[in-house]
Amino acid sequence: MSLASRNEDVRSLHARESGPCTVQLRSPYLIYFGNVPDAGHAKTGLGLIQWRRENCAGQFRSAGCQVDGGLADMSIADAAAAGVGSLVIGVASEGGSIPDSWVGDLAEAARAGLDVVSGMHVRLSDFPEIEAAARASGARLIDVRTPPRRLPVGTGEKRSGRRILTVGTDCAVGKKYTALALEREMRARGLNADFRATGQTGIMIAGSGIPLDCVVSDFLSGAAELLSPAAADDHWDVIEGQGALSHPSFAGVSLGLLHGSQPDALVLCHDPSREVLLGTGGGREFPILPVDEAMAQCLSFARRVNPAARFVGLSVNTSMLADNERQALLDRYERETGLPAVDPIKDGAGLIVDKILSKTGV
Amino acid sequence: MSLASRNEDVRSLHARESGPCTVQLRSPYLIYFGNVPDAGHAKTGLGLIQWRRENCAGQFRSAGCQVDGGLADMSIADAAAAGVGSLVIGVASEGGSIPDSWVGDLAEAARAGLDVVSGMHVRLSDFPEIEAAARASGARLIDVRTPPRRLPVGTGEKRSGRRILTVGTDCAVGKKYTALALEREMRARGLNADFRATGQTGIMIAGSGIPLDCVVSDFLSGAAELLSPAAADDHWDVIEGQGALSHPSFAGVSLGLLHGSQPDALVLCHDPSREVLLGTGGGREFPILPVDEAMAQCLSFARRVNPAARFVGLSVNTSMLADNERQALLDRYERETGLPAVDPIKDGAGLIVDKILSKTGV
Repeated sequence: MSLASRNEDVRSLHARESGPCTVQLRSPYLIYFGNVPDAGHAKTGLGLIQWRRENCAGQFRSAGCQVDGGLADMSIADAAAAGVGSLVIGVASEGGSIPDSWVGDLAEAARAGLDVVSGMHVRLSDFPEIEAAARASGARLIDVRTPPRRLPVGTGEKRSGRRILTVGTDCAVGKKYTALALEREMRARGLNADFRATGQTGIMIAGSGIPLDCVVSDFLSGAAELLSPAAADDHWDVIEGQGALSHPSFAGVSLGLLHGSQPDALVLCHDPSREVLLGTGGGREFPILPVDEAMAQCLSFARRVNPAARFVGLSVNTSMLADNERQALLDRYERETGLPAVDPIKDGAGLIVDKILSKTGV
Repeated sequence: MSLASRNEDVRSLHARESGPCTVQLRSPYLIYFGNVPDAGHAKTGLGLIQWRRENCAGQFRSAGCQVDGGLADMSIADAAAAGVGSLVIGVASEGGSIPDSWVGDLAEAARAGLDVVSGMHVRLSDFPEIEAAARASGARLIDVRTPPRRLPVGTGEKRSGRRILTVGTDCAVGKKYTALALEREMRARGLNADFRATGQTGIMIAGSGIPLDCVVSDFLSGAAELLSPAAADDHWDVIEGQGALSHPSFAGVSLGLLHGSQPDALVLCHDPSREVLLGTGGGREFPILPVDEAMAQCLSFARRVNPAARFVGLSVNTSMLADNERQALLDRYERETGLPAVDPIKDGAGLIVDKILSKTGV
């Protein structure tokens, strides 16, 4: 499209804008585990309990459920009586659909006035029973995969406040976990820090965010700009990265997020046990980039929007390594990059926060 | 989202796929100029006549129209009698809407059985009079800004056939024009070449394509893969580029398109009179990258998906320069890059096609 018509877009989009542009969930939550067969399918709910225990009032488990999140078991009537704000589906189903066996529970929750929050592909409102229950009670049906409707085109204009972005050498290398660990550590030190979610699980944990991979591509960097708005000079947004610049399936999302985030500090997430990109193979395998190349690639784009951008650490998945191998590998990364290298699951994110506060990096 | 659920997506999307994924227009066309006040607002229609004169049966102009595309004037009844397939809106309106004064004409065309083709922001079907007319006759209402519904995630898998992609140092630097000029020159030499459109004007000219900036970002490279499917070994797709990797508003689109296109040959489009990116300014200006830097940036990503990717020429907008300055500048670019540098409006694209066929480049 022409720039003139794009700019018209931007103006008209801003003009039509109203209300908060990001999802906002109502806590406390009832975590819905349904009849989930194993913890692998309950990652969303377990992650929410791990990172936002204080927002979780209870769990709902039906016959056959093989997961226990350690919360009080509650019926939907219990939850409504206890003032629970939302039922959050904490389970992934095969195919991203909502199985028939859940529909009655979700409708009951909506009828009782609880918002129902879903990260599934199908929309809650496509189920007439759930839709009717929500309409009757005024409860909201929140599909966190649905991006806000009125997004602006990115401007590249510098915003106040400071930003950390986690980036990766691949998908699924700990970008969300690392951002959450950084937020927790920074808050523990009394810093003013907020995790900013860009995927559906992150949005459920944070209670707000924008599902970046669902955004229309013209508005990618605009959505990222909106996600971390201008803030106080001492405020840190800790932004959940997506994909990888080197991943031929998702690099566009990664680049739009990088540009829109204007990061002051970047953390590279990496899994040394992986040789080729996830989702590639079968004669068309893409090698994982070496960490120095991945960092240089990210920095060249980050500095376009923030000349002060620097890397402040590596977040390394060492779960496949013995303890002695583990430390040797982290030491090698530290020597090679001059940056702290930690596995946040085992080491926490303290060394990276030290580096952020030292205002140094590479 | 997790890779597992992404891959589920891909499978289910492929499974649900049916019918052509790209827009397909029905020619010949009646070009609708309405009451357009100047040629600047009629670029779509004039471009369609310039590049696909053989598909244009006539033009429709109402009182006050200040543009003449050089076609026979036709009423809608004339067009229907002459077997016209589609009325194509060749005009941009302020704000991207469809003015009241057009609605009766468009409904009349739909009632007469002509498909109606629009690149406006609003949807044709949002106008009850047009919608009812189309339903009655069976005519299609085609909004070329609406992307196909079932797009796959990109795979990075190598496809047969050859591909040229035009890239740029900015938006609106001739990427569409250059691709069309290359297609025309290649076809004139008897080569098997097809222009592949990624924006709405390009789609109207080509009669098919995918509006890449309207695609959900997770499917960017998948859409680009779909746009230039596997083809005969001697076939060339000439793909219309979008945006620029260096543009903080649109780089995500550019990168998804670059990855999905797997270009064998790249042409850099550049406007030497421009100092900062279009749409940036007001204290936040982004300098245009030097051509060597822009080329290196594109190549580093293009070679991820096609190690043989090379640049084969520069397409330079010299409209602001006197003739002697013009040639001196093109000569300088040729010396500096080792590639043919042409202004396709003045010089055609022949030198770049020579370079493509020589199988050399940088």
